[in-house]
Amino acid sequence: MSIDSTHPFDQAILLESLGPDDESTTQRLRFQGKTSDAYANMVGPFGGITAAQMLQAVLEHPQREGEPVSFTCNFASPLRDGRFTVLAEPVRTNRSTQHWMLTLMQEDEAGERQLVASATALTAKRRQTWSVTDQIMPDVAPAANLERGSTKGRPPWFSRYDMRWLQGDLPQRWDGHEHEGSTSLLWVRDEPPRALDYAGLLALCDVFFPRILLRRAAFVPCGTVSMTVYFHADAAALAAAGADFVLARAQGQVFFNGWFDQAGWLWSSKGKVLATTHQVVYYKE
Amino acid sequence: MSIDSTHPFDQAILLESLGPDDESTTQRLRFQGKTSDAYANMVGPFGGITAAQMLQAVLEHPQREGEPVSFTCNFASPLRDGRFTVLAEPVRTNRSTQHWMLTLMQEDEAGERQLVASATALTAKRRQTWSVTDQIMPDVAPAANLERGSTKGRPPWFSRYDMRWLQGDLPQRWDGHEHEGSTSLLWVRDEPPRALDYAGLLALCDVFFPRILLRRAAFVPCGTVSMTVYFHADAAALAAAGADFVLARAQGQVFFNGWFDQAGWLWSSKGKVLATTHQVVYYKE
Repeated sequence: MSIDSTHPFDQAILLESLGPDDESTTQRLRFQGKTSDAYANMVGPFGGITAAQMLQAVLEHPQREGEPVSFTCNFASPLRDGRFTVLAEPVRTNRSTQHWMLTLMQEDEAGERQLVASATALTAKRRQTWSVTDQIMPDVAPAANLERGSTKGRPPWFSRYDMRWLQGDLPQRWDGHEHEGSTSLLWVRDEPPRALDYAGLLALCDVFFPRILLRRAAFVPCGTVSMTVYFHADAAALAAAGADFVLARAQGQVFFNGWFDQAGWLWSSKGKVLATTHQVVYYKE
Repeated sequence: MSIDSTHPFDQAILLESLGPDDESTTQRLRFQGKTSDAYANMVGPFGGITAAQMLQAVLEHPQREGEPVSFTCNFASPLRDGRFTVLAEPVRTNRSTQHWMLTLMQEDEAGERQLVASATALTAKRRQTWSVTDQIMPDVAPAANLERGSTKGRPPWFSRYDMRWLQGDLPQRWDGHEHEGSTSLLWVRDEPPRALDYAGLLALCDVFFPRILLRRAAFVPCGTVSMTVYFHADAAALAAAGADFVLARAQGQVFFNGWFDQAGWLWSSKGKVLATTHQVVYYKE
């Protein structure tokens, strides 16, 4: 692993390999990371950065084969500021696919080691073949024609993205007036700009704040508990996307008795879908 | 566990508790199940039944708290006919949520124990609160006005569902003529009818055959590799749905170099969303 970047994202996903978890395994490896003030959220870090740190353990694992196709992360508890350990294990390796199970562990206030997040990942060798999309990019004004959204009064991680809103920014007035829809549409890229890679794309999939804030226009306590990302990009597609803006759309689906889900889509500026994503979020009101 | 049903689904999800996995744990429990001929697919079982068997290990785990909210299952390899073991462990228990990691293990032809599937689950205690849906049920003809779809020439599991197609059944002609869309819409219920529960609802989320078969009208080798289900139903909602038909809609999203994803929605006949689901599927052409 080379430390060739001073970008806050690269600093945030920096992991130190600690070797096998115990003597019984050569596959289940431990990586040490630490939380990043630059990506702090209201309570604990921005979920997208935690997910990216876990994916990074897969990407740096010496037995890894293929590129990420699917990643599911379950957030069990807020991370505390400081160090944590990611355990990454390829649990099945096939000819062209590989399955991963991951846990993120951290000591709690009493010094007890606790599971903070779990994840599964699928990596695969892709081949060029018949491709088509049934999710066409919305026809919108280019990012250059829009102003950067405000980060004023928002948690630190918002400042790590240049967001240019077309629809559905956080409400101007928190008046509890129920909105009709729960859709957001924005151009977004890392701030400062950074060439897209799998970890960066994964984090981008979590830039949509919980839909209930938009739907209710009220400070409803809420937080993402499980998030799944399907990658629709190979190395060439990531290279083509570069450090340019990505068009991101999110929509709430069902809000029911304390839990809702939202779906998201991310396109390169040239109209290629790079990822689709879903998450389930708790809310308390 | 009471064996109070001769329904093939209940027989299929029957598990035998084998107790703790080893002496180091009281939480990671082993359950033994076996494949069901009634739910056989082309190669191995219908994925929905395998997912349901894994969820069942959570539901029968004596330390389980709350009801399923989220379930992600990764299919690493086809199951062979016969017995298998599910390992289910609550990896974090909070005040109102509980996180699970699961593996399904089976001996391969050489007698070696292999991981065949992995999964994560989230269970939670739900409270009645503000609820709304942004996914309104399509206005369609009632199931009673439609004929049951054909199961002729289809794998056995199709006969375990009464499917009444409104749109997007398997192509009549496999002529390789590319279709415009990849949407299916159908009424569906267990055959014979069976009152809906979490395991039954999870299996129903996999009744959509891979979208690429519809999109290409060709026998493209393909198979679901990861599937996520968000449950939007509590005990009362399941009881209200009963053994009635469920309206199920699925749509392909992005087909890119050997992998595509599809999204799905399931409504009770009264218009309540019961589950939303997503899966990523490999294809080879």
